Amino acid sequence: MEIKIAQVGTGFMGKTHSIAYRVLSTFVPAGVKVKLQVLADVTEELARDGARKFGYENWVVGWEKIFDHDIDAVDIVTPNDVHPAIAIEAARRGKHVICEKPLAINVAKTREMVEAVEKAGVVNMVCFNYRQIPAVVMAKKLIDEGAIGKLYHFRAQYLQDWCVDPESPFVWRFQASRAGSGSLGDIGSHAIDYARYLVGEFDEVVALTETFVKERPLPGARDVHPVDVDDAVNMLIRFKNGAIGCLEASRFCYGRKNYLTFEVNGSQGSLYFDWEHCNDLFFYSARDREDRQGYRDIKIGPMHPHAEALWPIPGINMAYVETAILQAKEFVTAIVEGRQAVPSFRDGLQVASIMEAVLQSAATGSWTKVPLVV
Amino acid sequence: MEIKIAQVGTGFMGKTHSIAYRVLSTFVPAGVKVKLQVLADVTEELARDGARKFGYENWVVGWEKIFDHDIDAVDIVTPNDVHPAIAIEAARRGKHVICEKPLAINVAKTREMVEAVEKAGVVNMVCFNYRQIPAVVMAKKLIDEGAIGKLYHFRAQYLQDWCVDPESPFVWRFQASRAGSGSLGDIGSHAIDYARYLVGEFDEVVALTETFVKERPLPGARDVHPVDVDDAVNMLIRFKNGAIGCLEASRFCYGRKNYLTFEVNGSQGSLYFDWEHCNDLFFYSARDREDRQGYRDIKIGPMHPHAEALWPIPGINMAYVETAILQAKEFVTAIVEGRQAVPSFRDGLQVASIMEAVLQSAATGSWTKVPLVV
Amino acid sequence: MEIKIAQVGTGFMGKTHSIAYRVLSTFVPAGVKVKLQVLADVTEELARDGARKFGYENWVVGWEKIFDHDIDAVDIVTPNDVHPAIAIEAARRGKHVICEKPLAINVAKTREMVEAVEKAGVVNMVCFNYRQIPAVVMAKKLIDEGAIGKLYHFRAQYLQDWCVDPESPFVWRFQASRAGSGSLGDIGSHAIDYARYLVGEFDEVVALTETFVKERPLPGARDVHPVDVDDAVNMLIRFKNGAIGCLEASRFCYGRKNYLTFEVNGSQGSLYFDWEHCNDLFFYSARDREDRQGYRDIKIGPMHPHAEALWPIPGINMAYVETAILQAKEFVTAIVEGRQAVPSFRDGLQVASIMEAVLQSAATGSWTKVPLVV
Amino acid sequence: MEIKIAQVGTGFMGKTHSIAYRVLSTFVPAGVKVKLQVLADVTEELARDGARKFGYENWVVGWEKIFDHDIDAVDIVTPNDVHPAIAIEAARRGKHVICEKPLAINVAKTREMVEAVEKAGVVNMVCFNYRQIPAVVMAKKLIDEGAIGKLYHFRAQYLQDWCVDPESPFVWRFQASRAGSGSLGDIGSHAIDYARYLVGEFDEVVALTETFVKERPLPGARDVHPVDVDDAVNMLIRFKNGAIGCLEASRFCYGRKNYLTFEVNGSQGSLYFDWEHCNDLFFYSARDREDRQGYRDIKIGPMHPHAEALWPIPGINMAYVETAILQAKEFVTAIVEGRQAVPSFRDGLQVASIMEAVLQSAATGSWTKVPLVV
Repeated sequence: MEIKIAQVGTGFMGKTHSIAYRVLSTFVPAGVKVKLQVLADVTEELARDGARKFGYENWVVGWEKIFDHDIDAVDIVTPNDVHPAIAIEAARRGKHVICEKPLAINVAKTREMVEAVEKAGVVNMVCFNYRQIPAVVMAKKLIDEGAIGKLYHFRAQYLQDWCVDPESPFVWRFQASRAGSGSLGDIGSHAIDYARYLVGEFDEVVALTETFVKERPLPGARDVHPVDVDDAVNMLIRFKNGAIGCLEASRFCYGRKNYLTFEVNGSQGSLYFDWEHCNDLFFYSARDREDRQGYRDIKIGPMHPHAEALWPIPGINMAYVETAILQAKEFVTAIVEGRQAVPSFRDGLQVASIMEAVLQSAATGSWTKVPLVV
Repeated sequence: MEIKIAQVGTGFMGKTHSIAYRVLSTFVPAGVKVKLQVLADVTEELARDGARKFGYENWVVGWEKIFDHDIDAVDIVTPNDVHPAIAIEAARRGKHVICEKPLAINVAKTREMVEAVEKAGVVNMVCFNYRQIPAVVMAKKLIDEGAIGKLYHFRAQYLQDWCVDPESPFVWRFQASRAGSGSLGDIGSHAIDYARYLVGEFDEVVALTETFVKERPLPGARDVHPVDVDDAVNMLIRFKNGAIGCLEASRFCYGRKNYLTFEVNGSQGSLYFDWEHCNDLFFYSARDREDRQGYRDIKIGPMHPHAEALWPIPGINMAYVETAILQAKEFVTAIVEGRQAVPSFRDGLQVASIMEAVLQSAATGSWTKVPLVV
Repeated sequence: MEIKIAQVGTGFMGKTHSIAYRVLSTFVPAGVKVKLQVLADVTEELARDGARKFGYENWVVGWEKIFDHDIDAVDIVTPNDVHPAIAIEAARRGKHVICEKPLAINVAKTREMVEAVEKAGVVNMVCFNYRQIPAVVMAKKLIDEGAIGKLYHFRAQYLQDWCVDPESPFVWRFQASRAGSGSLGDIGSHAIDYARYLVGEFDEVVALTETFVKERPLPGARDVHPVDVDDAVNMLIRFKNGAIGCLEASRFCYGRKNYLTFEVNGSQGSLYFDWEHCNDLFFYSARDREDRQGYRDIKIGPMHPHAEALWPIPGINMAYVETAILQAKEFVTAIVEGRQAVPSFRDGLQVASIMEAVLQSAATGSWTKVPLVV
Repeated sequence: MEIKIAQVGTGFMGKTHSIAYRVLSTFVPAGVKVKLQVLADVTEELARDGARKFGYENWVVGWEKIFDHDIDAVDIVTPNDVHPAIAIEAARRGKHVICEKPLAINVAKTREMVEAVEKAGVVNMVCFNYRQIPAVVMAKKLIDEGAIGKLYHFRAQYLQDWCVDPESPFVWRFQASRAGSGSLGDIGSHAIDYARYLVGEFDEVVALTETFVKERPLPGARDVHPVDVDDAVNMLIRFKNGAIGCLEASRFCYGRKNYLTFEVNGSQGSLYFDWEHCNDLFFYSARDREDRQGYRDIKIGPMHPHAEALWPIPGINMAYVETAILQAKEFVTAIVEGRQAVPSFRDGLQVASIMEAVLQSAATGSWTKVPLVV
């Protein structure tokens, strides 16, 4: 079986996804082939160079033209505001769709995307890639097995520092009409995905957002452009299962480069994870003999979920690109097996629903219920 | 000059404070002597054994009897509800007072204590001992010098796990009428003290509290007793200077034994501290050469504030008892120099004011202003 | 320009190298194409399955048949004893060669390989892949810039635990005639490469080796086979530049999965690296202001050598596969540019020369001079 | 029972030991009192100031005068070359003796001390204080219980950086006739003590020593003085029980302030300890369920050996002063119980025997047998 991919976008994410597709034959069952059919971007230079670098056979200018090619699936790695049109058109044409997060700039747009893919019955997947790393899959497995008992606490942070400097230029990520939100959608959405994946659905939130730098210089120009998204967001969470949580996302934390962490505490133990040491899962069991309890540093390796596909030795280490490989593997395998991929667009919609409640709470100063849409 | 101490209480804190007094001659200027005059507790056995172990010359049953002895200062290490009567009587009699935190079970009681000591003009000090560790004093010094610039973020956690087990027996710390609050006052107050010390005054808070285990067995009895304090508290903070914060305290986090941490992010750098590695201060400077920036692990030693009094070599390490020694040193030195000690009862009152706003916010679900009482 | 690769071997290393070639177009200059021409192994099943998984266009049984195909370069990922014949034949036919480490089972065989490739004038490279990780390249850059001054100390460890269990079966890695040595060549050679790369040439060594488990069960059989290689090796080093060192390799250290570390101390500072946290380089500078010196955790990112080709954000993280990508990039770029690759076969020979001195010292109990062959 | 102490020396160690005695009543059984009887140093100023600061009732100039006072035990905290005369005279007079390490500048002198105290039948103890920290006592307990099985590997480092700067002045620690050796005796002796305590007796060693800075400025003078001791020492060890080891001590490792670590690997698990995080013992058990093995960070607290005497909560943290308290507790308890203290002078003699073999090996370049003297 051959799956022909069209990809829209040639930035950092485009590079990452294309690497994943090119090595996928090593990780999927015999008989499955992934073909890099066509790559689109907004200029000829971007599309042509991207096709050469990423190994696409064809390139087009403008995403609409991908449908002139024989394709099975569309991979969307554009700015957020462009996602819906592509995804909806792909679904309408019966193509499977994988799309970067957040799916769209708000719930309404996200809902349109979900309706389109579900109506079309195509495989659909949202790129919460950080849940694909084996250490996190292992955490989920331990929770599901009851290794830490009933859940009490969740806490997560996603901290970066790339725009603390007020001279860091204005880009689309600082604009609500293009990005939807700032730190919240860009990085906080990954931490929210962890919360849902590991603990369950949100009941209500209270949040604050802050924009520390109100305007930024336009690249290559003397003008400045206002920033209308959050530089940072902090929230308290009540989960439906009674657990409580706190979650923070910020791009204003010097020294934190890509600091994505979570901790879950339950009635029998705890789990801790830190992306910057993404091959370790820390597990504390209250069932260990009393005089030798302690957080265990489990080096994730072939013993753990998904890892068999990767490196056979713990300590060899995986990192960012492996999250993309495992994500692509799930997408392609779901197509092959004729089942839904996980996480799906509907998962993306539930995260959008949470983010909308967060922004509303930040605006009103009140605890805000999170509508359940899954 | 000799300072004669009366101490009320012989528990863990009584032990700690008495150790500090016994070694203080090594750390204070020549000519200052500290005499352990009298120790009080509620039974003869506790008082007598304590006096022998802690080196007190006399012991009494019932705190009122300490005033039958020739004393200069009173050290209060009893349950929280007993603090005010002792402190107020000590002040009335012109004795200097040092008192464990939280000063009382609510703002009203705390205010009475402040009024008493200020009216009497005695030296007064609240035992936020964790701010005495040199790494934290060094953090304060770096912030004051502008090393991390304008402050944006504060986050702190104080997590323990000693009562996750629902069979862990009922003690006074689970009773509002004796403790005031649960995790909030017991451990959260230290993190709140860090917030004020390092960042500044709170403007408003929103908080949630949770009691995971609603009743606990009475020691030695078949009955259970309801728990009417928080097992955990989470809050978001807006500081008066524009910084934002989040702060969590819980005794339900397996694996976290005495996990007190803070991080402060500013426009020029960051600071991170973790009590479990209390001899290290982590400092990130955006002024370092761009290709070699990174969190520095500063091993606190003789180069740093207060440390000259302690061990002359970094890496020798200090820990809990040194916080008590430095605290006692500040109290005694303030008496000798005829100045106010830091942190004072008024600092304790401001922390009480914050805690009252936190509990009110948790009850109402609203952002709550913090009255300024310092 | 197109470079057509033949690969011999389909094990773990074969997988890794093939992944690197498939994504290389993203990392090399425009105009360079790498074609996976032919894959060889010892059975049809291995070769055919490997070709499908790894993306090779053709497969052959027996390495000699690769020369029936139109190829430019040979990648050797077989057991050590097979390396020389393939490399020498490839050189004789004018093919560029990249070969796993150690190049051969002894110095004599290694020397034959060096002579063959040098006589043929082909590009040759030995796979000390762990020196390719950007954190280590950055360490080298800092040393070369004088950031830590004159070098005094080097220490390195490479510790694993996959065969502590005496029931772990006999494989070729336990046999001197196939592997040359045990921990020494298998993992210690990487640490020795670090020593040469970062500090310089060895003057003399004294070493001990130990075999804790003297025989192991043959897979699927009732018999056991003697182990005639080292389970562990420890050595002291005197470098030609006056620095001293110690280096240890063992596969008998429970909990250490792939624990490869080094530390270098000089007259102005220190560097520390640990593969299990391979995105961090720890740097201590005695030139920092005295009261704020500390090991800095430099998160390696786009600011650092090589990293531009990879991920644009520090904290995104790289790991094992990136070492293979950067290694393949060096090999291919050297071919394109018509220059020697680094590290070359001659580097591999010098490492072999050190290892022979180590084994000799372990046998004689004496300090042993290391002949210089580069 | 009252034990009257005489102390000789008022430096850093004098301070530490006196603090321990002053708080000992909290840690020893009822009925035992420690009295600080008399303090000696070489000048009136040092002795008088010390007595005031350390709480001694009397002071004398010249150690011989301590015997004019009514004393039970002598605590020796002078430079190494002065130890023997004091210890031997104390023993002759029937006084118990506790002495800093190394006991003397060579084996011959140390043997005289051992003979004196054993002939006199007095309690005698050598101050290998770092083995007193509960995390290390816990490590010993786990080894003795077989938790890590048969021992294969030991490795230890004791690294400091206080004299890397060649302008750091000449002091007695750089002079063989006063110190015996350099890093070896000053810090390496602690690591050697760990090796014996945890693994067992040495069979043979091979070692190198190095002096990086050959002369240093005399304090307050224009002259320099030659350095005739080791700045660094590295050794390989064969233990009598078949384990192998490596051990390094250096004062030339920038960034390492007081970095004392050990790791022991056995057939069933491993232990790791690092003084800079002295409240954690890392334990790996190969008996844990296979998919969740990992180094456990055991926070040492009341559950562990000795800790009951200290702080009742893990995470409260202990550090340097607690090693002195536990050491003094052992010395005093041994006197009270009429038994030998551990580690004894004979343990100190065995360490001296090892150090002499190390220096001999460094001089001859050969493996050197370690005579057993215990």
